[in-house]
Amino acid sequence: MRIFVFLALLTVAIGTENLNSHVFPRPLIIEYPEKQLRDELKCTTWRFVVETNNLSPWKTIPEECADYVKEYMVGPGYEMEIDRVSDEAGEYAKSVDLGDDGRDVWIFDVDETLLSNLPYYSDHRYGLEVFDDVEFDKWVEKGTAPALGSSLKLYQEVLKLGFKVFLLTGRSERHRSVTVENLMNAGFHDWHKLILRGSDDHGKTATTYKSERRNEMVEEGFRIVGNSGDQWSDLLGSSMTYRSFKLPNPMYYIL
Amino acid sequence: MRIFVFLALLTVAIGTENLNSHVFPRPLIIEYPEKQLRDELKCTTWRFVVETNNLSPWKTIPEECADYVKEYMVGPGYEMEIDRVSDEAGEYAKSVDLGDDGRDVWIFDVDETLLSNLPYYSDHRYGLEVFDDVEFDKWVEKGTAPALGSSLKLYQEVLKLGFKVFLLTGRSERHRSVTVENLMNAGFHDWHKLILRGSDDHGKTATTYKSERRNEMVEEGFRIVGNSGDQWSDLLGSSMTYRSFKLPNPMYYIL
Repeated sequence: MRIFVFLALLTVAIGTENLNSHVFPRPLIIEYPEKQLRDELKCTTWRFVVETNNLSPWKTIPEECADYVKEYMVGPGYEMEIDRVSDEAGEYAKSVDLGDDGRDVWIFDVDETLLSNLPYYSDHRYGLEVFDDVEFDKWVEKGTAPALGSSLKLYQEVLKLGFKVFLLTGRSERHRSVTVENLMNAGFHDWHKLILRGSDDHGKTATTYKSERRNEMVEEGFRIVGNSGDQWSDLLGSSMTYRSFKLPNPMYYIL
Repeated sequence: MRIFVFLALLTVAIGTENLNSHVFPRPLIIEYPEKQLRDELKCTTWRFVVETNNLSPWKTIPEECADYVKEYMVGPGYEMEIDRVSDEAGEYAKSVDLGDDGRDVWIFDVDETLLSNLPYYSDHRYGLEVFDDVEFDKWVEKGTAPALGSSLKLYQEVLKLGFKVFLLTGRSERHRSVTVENLMNAGFHDWHKLILRGSDDHGKTATTYKSERRNEMVEEGFRIVGNSGDQWSDLLGSSMTYRSFKLPNPMYYIL
């Protein structure tokens, strides 16, 4: 029995060498596993309340979850989740019986939905720092945010199915040209509308601003059939979609 | 170094003996950790899409996540999350400036919100079996579902703060008396309304039925200030609350 345990443990010792660093952020074998698992559960609990809109608003990620969020974002967890959300959205999109009047709309948010700001957030500790709009604007103005791969796939699918695609972003009108350029370079083409915050929209919550724009779409006779966003403020409010798709984002919160 | 590793591993061997079975559902030390972690990520991904309403509808939990869901439900994960949701709800409730007209309402769902059906689901593989309404009705008719402790605390807090408490449940009118008895025995008293599905409501989705009842509350002049439920169909639709609180439930889905 003793020999078996020793051999089994040796297997772990060998096995762990092959693990990527994200799998066990801290050295499991020299900590008390129970405490470590409790700490990890604190962060999975935090993520649950964040992703289900139970915590509102919040400004930064908890200090104790800094490693957890980083490992989630750079490890396979984030990618698996965004892929799965897009897969579900794609299945739903295919199941919709579109009208022949060209009035069926799919709305996409931009940041953390079509484009990833992970290069920016990796330089800003994945949400541990309070949001700095001046710094973030500099990043936006570079126009180099990469596409979220699975969102690009979904985007192309819904266009092909015949949906009108409206992009509804919290970015400002003054960033229109750099946003267009960034989207095009990242592979997004042929959208029907790109709606940015106008001068009248500043000071409004995202929920209010986006609801107002959706109300206008409905008044113009469009049917909002799908809506993809990483923030609940992309999805909730008035003129809500029939089915919404919430992408994960544990790094920041927009009211 | 070799000796250090051996001693460290021995510490784990001793440490793991003290672990509750829920912490490592399968024997970690004799499996390939990387594959196991991938499998676990499949289930955390599934849970993310479920809890954020991206998967709709779904009938049973995935076979591959049976152990994961069980361990989550019986381990500390579920309890930590429901506690945290109630804490956030309590903080919000305290922050609300109530009118002096007695028209501020907090809505609670019943099953998996105030009362726990975990004793039933532990006999039915935590959602792996397709929902059986005949069997479930037998369980409901026993009237022995225990309170969710943190929900009882929140319930008492919001009553004390002066909210009107409306219970809005998908249970049928024919279960009114057993539901009242069960709630009372579990510690819930002094609600203002208990709304169950009437004969006209059968065949409606929960979203439609609950929205209609909320519309009536609003028409009667009530303000729906908070709403606690484990299903998105408790929370979405028309006459939505200002802030909703989504309790976890990876075991079943109600449209």
